[in-house]
Amino acid sequence: MKAVVYRGARDLAIEDHAPQAPGPGQVRIEVAYTGICGTDLHIFHGDMDARVGASAVLGHEMSGRIAAIGEGVTGWSVGQAVTVMPTRACGRCPACRRGDSHICHSMDFLGIDSPGAMQSSWTVPADLVLALPDDLPLDHAALVEPVAVAVHDVGRGRIVPGEQVVVVGGGPVGVLIAAVARDRGAQVLLVEPDGFRRSVAARIGIEAVDPGPIDVVALVNERTGGAGADVAFEVSGSAGGVGTAVDVLTTRGRLVLVAIHPQPRPVNLHRFFWRELELVGARLYQRADVAEAIRLVAAGVVPARELISRVLSVEDVTDAFVALEGGGGVLKVLLDWREEGR
Amino acid sequence: MKAVVYRGARDLAIEDHAPQAPGPGQVRIEVAYTGICGTDLHIFHGDMDARVGASAVLGHEMSGRIAAIGEGVTGWSVGQAVTVMPTRACGRCPACRRGDSHICHSMDFLGIDSPGAMQSSWTVPADLVLALPDDLPLDHAALVEPVAVAVHDVGRGRIVPGEQVVVVGGGPVGVLIAAVARDRGAQVLLVEPDGFRRSVAARIGIEAVDPGPIDVVALVNERTGGAGADVAFEVSGSAGGVGTAVDVLTTRGRLVLVAIHPQPRPVNLHRFFWRELELVGARLYQRADVAEAIRLVAAGVVPARELISRVLSVEDVTDAFVALEGGGGVLKVLLDWREEGR
Repeated sequence: MKAVVYRGARDLAIEDHAPQAPGPGQVRIEVAYTGICGTDLHIFHGDMDARVGASAVLGHEMSGRIAAIGEGVTGWSVGQAVTVMPTRACGRCPACRRGDSHICHSMDFLGIDSPGAMQSSWTVPADLVLALPDDLPLDHAALVEPVAVAVHDVGRGRIVPGEQVVVVGGGPVGVLIAAVARDRGAQVLLVEPDGFRRSVAARIGIEAVDPGPIDVVALVNERTGGAGADVAFEVSGSAGGVGTAVDVLTTRGRLVLVAIHPQPRPVNLHRFFWRELELVGARLYQRADVAEAIRLVAAGVVPARELISRVLSVEDVTDAFVALEGGGGVLKVLLDWREEGR
Repeated sequence: MKAVVYRGARDLAIEDHAPQAPGPGQVRIEVAYTGICGTDLHIFHGDMDARVGASAVLGHEMSGRIAAIGEGVTGWSVGQAVTVMPTRACGRCPACRRGDSHICHSMDFLGIDSPGAMQSSWTVPADLVLALPDDLPLDHAALVEPVAVAVHDVGRGRIVPGEQVVVVGGGPVGVLIAAVARDRGAQVLLVEPDGFRRSVAARIGIEAVDPGPIDVVALVNERTGGAGADVAFEVSGSAGGVGTAVDVLTTRGRLVLVAIHPQPRPVNLHRFFWRELELVGARLYQRADVAEAIRLVAAGVVPARELISRVLSVEDVTDAFVALEGGGGVLKVLLDWREEGR
């Protein structure tokens, strides 16, 4: 079978590995599709070499079918469509002891810390597997993991139907947050400078504006009788995005911080004080978020078809990463593993 | 009667004013004691001249007795001990329409925007008046307003009994937050560089450490099995204080932002993301907070006697402001209006 292996910055190899038979408590999955995430791109750039060893198998967004079942595993059948929640908590750290195991201090993240989904045959602990509905296309199902991120982020925003929501940043996660927030009854405005991304948002019925020519804060104030937005999601990772997300909020508005900001950012704390704003960090997801993501993709609430820009064969994995680097012109890119796994 | 009038930076005058008879819906109060707040000090320094006109009567922390009752006012009797909630919401702005009237965009703050409590006879709307228990000494009762701030701040922190709380900054509000948080069942550590302030905290049984020689984050981690504090209050107004308050927190810990930070501060947003922290702005109080503050002062939960460093006569008002400027050596300073009012 084939596996995409990270050999160092900008160097991915397709290697031939022997399929691993499932041990006790494990299942082997024939992978159908894998998605490429912003984190995979960071790894590709060599930015995570301290954590990701050479010869790591990447990938944590996937769909597939059960191929073999290990000893002691019940409730699964060969051929069943599944996805995998790629995080394993240690159960012993302070975060786990508090009940925050989804952000475990010693997280084993499959596809980062241990072998990931970019292999035609993936053997994983059975307790990380979730069943997919029979009629959910497997390419669409490869979006479940990023949708789970969006479900978790929206949950952290505690949206009430009818609330005004501003999503700052219209990459894959930003667009998914917008779609999930809309499903929760919010009035959603997406802020994104890239025209292609705005066109994808428009295609799925999300209003998207370019923050270059448009004064987003003035627009939101105009629409809310001068009040401001109830919830903002910072998904841009930029200093300007933080500023916009703070400035659009009404009294007691919530800013959900989704993006990674490696450097400290200047934050207008006076406005947090003056308007009693909240900043809420959001990272990863809990199992219930993944289950809800499956439901939303299956129900078409997240219109997966419109969000998948390209599906490439495994041999073109480097092209797929390079296409994503540009940012413009593609949203979600999948790799198709089906010829390999069967 | 006498009134303390702001004439410009560092220029306070004691003027002789005629008492104002209460109009319909008003009461006249003979002021007993007034406190001096950090905001009063800002006004004294000329920092709020854009908002505070020359000849403004300062003061919003007070206690006194009803002296006269205006038309249509019921439920009060002459001689009754009272305090005043010094904020009036407009009822029409977006904040008021949302139910956030305590942080009204067009707040009338008595003692800033309209005549305050630093006059021997103060005429105010009756709906801002709260009764004091008969046996509560009036000097202690002058602390009710800052205690209401602390009650509100602690409420924003959603403290659960047994939680670890770090209060960064041990001025009057910081010490009051520590006392209220302890009453809520928290384990409280106060962080304050000034030795006098630490000694006041120690006298009321609050553990206080000097962040100079002590690594506060290491200390908190050591005490919490590496987890960190559940809630931090940033009451220092310093960039370093923000950093400490962020760094001490456990997963999903809450940082309550109490202090005023006029300039944007660099904030470690990555840690907010990574640990799913929350930042919660806290400003002023609601009427229920003032009622709870009266209860806490009357019950001795807030040991007012230990927190009042000096009581000066009105003639010494400038000395009182100057004493507070230094910061060290005094915590709460009161003015005694009683000879004037009777």
